[in-house]
Amino acid sequence: MLGQLIEPEISEMIAKREFGALRRALQSFASASIAELFIDLQAAEMTVLFRILPRDRAAEVFEYLPLEQQEALMHELGTDQVAQILNEMAPDDRTALLEELPGPVTRRLIALLTPQERAIATQLLGYPESSVGRLMTPDYISVRENLTVGQVLDHIRKVGHDKETLNVIYVVDEKGTLLDDIRLRELILAEPEAPVSSLMDRQFVTLRADQDQEESVRAFQQYDRVALPVVDSSGLLVGMITVDDVMDVAEEEATEDIQKIGGMEAIDASYLNTGFWRMIRKRGGWLSVLFVGEMLTATAMGYFEAEIAKAVVLALFVPLIISSGGNTGSQASTLIVRSLALQELRLGDWWRVLMRELRSGLTLGAWLGLIGFVQVLVGQSFGWIDYGEHYLRLGVTVWISLTGVVAFGSTTGSMLPFFLRAVHLDPATSSAPFVATLVDVTGLIIYFSVATLVLRGALL
Amino acid sequence: MLGQLIEPEISEMIAKREFGALRRALQSFASASIAELFIDLQAAEMTVLFRILPRDRAAEVFEYLPLEQQEALMHELGTDQVAQILNEMAPDDRTALLEELPGPVTRRLIALLTPQERAIATQLLGYPESSVGRLMTPDYISVRENLTVGQVLDHIRKVGHDKETLNVIYVVDEKGTLLDDIRLRELILAEPEAPVSSLMDRQFVTLRADQDQEESVRAFQQYDRVALPVVDSSGLLVGMITVDDVMDVAEEEATEDIQKIGGMEAIDASYLNTGFWRMIRKRGGWLSVLFVGEMLTATAMGYFEAEIAKAVVLALFVPLIISSGGNTGSQASTLIVRSLALQELRLGDWWRVLMRELRSGLTLGAWLGLIGFVQVLVGQSFGWIDYGEHYLRLGVTVWISLTGVVAFGSTTGSMLPFFLRAVHLDPATSSAPFVATLVDVTGLIIYFSVATLVLRGALL
Repeated sequence: MLGQLIEPEISEMIAKREFGALRRALQSFASASIAELFIDLQAAEMTVLFRILPRDRAAEVFEYLPLEQQEALMHELGTDQVAQILNEMAPDDRTALLEELPGPVTRRLIALLTPQERAIATQLLGYPESSVGRLMTPDYISVRENLTVGQVLDHIRKVGHDKETLNVIYVVDEKGTLLDDIRLRELILAEPEAPVSSLMDRQFVTLRADQDQEESVRAFQQYDRVALPVVDSSGLLVGMITVDDVMDVAEEEATEDIQKIGGMEAIDASYLNTGFWRMIRKRGGWLSVLFVGEMLTATAMGYFEAEIAKAVVLALFVPLIISSGGNTGSQASTLIVRSLALQELRLGDWWRVLMRELRSGLTLGAWLGLIGFVQVLVGQSFGWIDYGEHYLRLGVTVWISLTGVVAFGSTTGSMLPFFLRAVHLDPATSSAPFVATLVDVTGLIIYFSVATLVLRGALL
Repeated sequence: MLGQLIEPEISEMIAKREFGALRRALQSFASASIAELFIDLQAAEMTVLFRILPRDRAAEVFEYLPLEQQEALMHELGTDQVAQILNEMAPDDRTALLEELPGPVTRRLIALLTPQERAIATQLLGYPESSVGRLMTPDYISVRENLTVGQVLDHIRKVGHDKETLNVIYVVDEKGTLLDDIRLRELILAEPEAPVSSLMDRQFVTLRADQDQEESVRAFQQYDRVALPVVDSSGLLVGMITVDDVMDVAEEEATEDIQKIGGMEAIDASYLNTGFWRMIRKRGGWLSVLFVGEMLTATAMGYFEAEIAKAVVLALFVPLIISSGGNTGSQASTLIVRSLALQELRLGDWWRVLMRELRSGLTLGAWLGLIGFVQVLVGQSFGWIDYGEHYLRLGVTVWISLTGVVAFGSTTGSMLPFFLRAVHLDPATSSAPFVATLVDVTGLIIYFSVATLVLRGALL
């Protein structure tokens, strides 16, 4: 929004080397807005703009940039400036950047950190990828329960300036075991002389550092918090996760699921930032697998070559019938994939879903079949198309086949995500194209089998 | 998690009427956990459990319940209890419930509110559905800039107990125009004697009450805040939106998009909570439209009936070829729909995307065509299937057609979301089945046209 409005002027100032005016112009914008402005700039312009920012502003703006742009900028900047930015970044944002880069680059960058920041970085990078540990920040405040509220507030005033969020502080025992979380608002509302223990209810929700990030999204949604503490397997407090990072994870997870449902591997960058051949690989892999699967349709139709030769009119309905099965299957699988992701459905619900999808499929199939039947009748009566003297039997064939194919599609589409979850694969892999391919071959067999039965003695 | 573990015991306690033990058992759980427990219970059990909760706990637990369950519970509870819960709910959660209910029920419930709460409810309900105004809460704290930090903290201690979040407070002028936002942490870290104006930088991000909720998701993601102020068209502060509500909106939007991509209308409840016929309508509508569109394939194939009669072998490849176009189109449209939703792509990028998708489509099509060509050759050589003496020309037909059909699929699939956005429709409507249907008819025409050219004088 902002970027589009002022970009031309900024470009002009850069071109004219009006750095003083530029610096003054940028002063009045929030860091997030400056980052937004950067996104539309060329790499060279971006570097110029970045260098004229005050030191502390630079690190802040850098944190708001997308990962790809952070990477591009690091290539352009000198080692000193990179070291300075890295040391001033919040640990969780820094971890996100470091884990995105190739191994040797990450090692070189870690070497630029101060010993203290290096210890934090390597600890966070020690957790598995996509784990809560990678997402957490060690920038939290913890206190002991024998302090008073006033002492805690003094402590916050002393150490709080560098901390990522002060909305929640944590109470720990002498070993560092988490005892409770206390919101800053509770401290403000309490009497300064009151002991911390008087605010404690020992009810708190924690995340474990080795949990998957996806589970942190569920926890934040369920408990409506702005931050959650992270503990290790023995209950020691090791970090904190903030809601802004969790929102980013939720968005990424949804994007991955959507891309998988669309029938491709998840790409982990934006469309225009993904290279041509990388994109071809991500899409071509699944397409090839589906294509080879779909080759079975040629084999299936080969079995009925004699029937098609006798009644070419049968071939006309092939795309209509198999696509209806595919469409219903794609609806069903999409519904179930999302419900499983949101934990509205559990693995044990499969039987209930199967029965329901069978009913839905038969109902929808009978309805679509009716439309098909009417079309054959109307087309024949008005003379738009000639289905031959046995058009009534042909219409019945279409009706019955559609009922069967659509019922098969919706049950297959709904059961595939359950099956994938049961064998510990991602249910989202059950994409619309995947389901359609599964349903196509069976759809053809159902259609030609019904045709053989209904049209025997007539067309066949 | 919790629900599944303790549910049997709870049910037993209810059955045995051990209300004292039950009340004690529930005391040690957080409100969100009790709500989770409710989700697995029968309506009757839920009502019993709800009635034994202390008054303030009841409203809290109620807020955490899904909307469908809130509705069910309201039917079971007496008017007094409903009035009490409604009056104690946070205004934004109450609005979400009221707007979900049928009009007459909403009016009856609003009548149960105290005059003060009623004014808030009707004001929030005055904003259009899915607007920021419906999502906001008037429970914020605003102060004037001539106060000192100490005076503000005293004010917070006095009025803060009922407020939804205290992490941010707002500075307004005498008319109520928003001047700045100040985080609670800044107040804590400042000297008590300092004037509020010394903390102000007059840089703040606002949402307008009439904006779409989806835009609030983008704003929260961009600015990493836990709350954002809402202003009316003249800049007056009218409310505040908190990040927990925005996370719910983000999840709903993703679910809606996923369902639309799966080729159906978005359902606004979970799978098992949507009635059978309601689900049939949501799915059947689009299926019928797609079916009628797909009927054109029969018409298209009708034009080539003579060719099929002469060379039945052509019919065998129909499903393979049209499904490849559909699969590529579904990939492309899914990618673009998500990129538009995340604002990684703008409307003006369409030409860049078109050129890129044309290249991708030709590359992927040529690759799949090669697989198809090899299959024809190998199948013929090993005698698995007999494509006749002109099998080489048939293979070439398949190869060329696939290149064309896949390129057509990926360009159509990528342009449809842009087109829908341009005419102010939701790009997510561009579902995999929708794109497949568009591509199928053209795919058939491409295939049979290529066949007519390549096989002329041979099979045809």
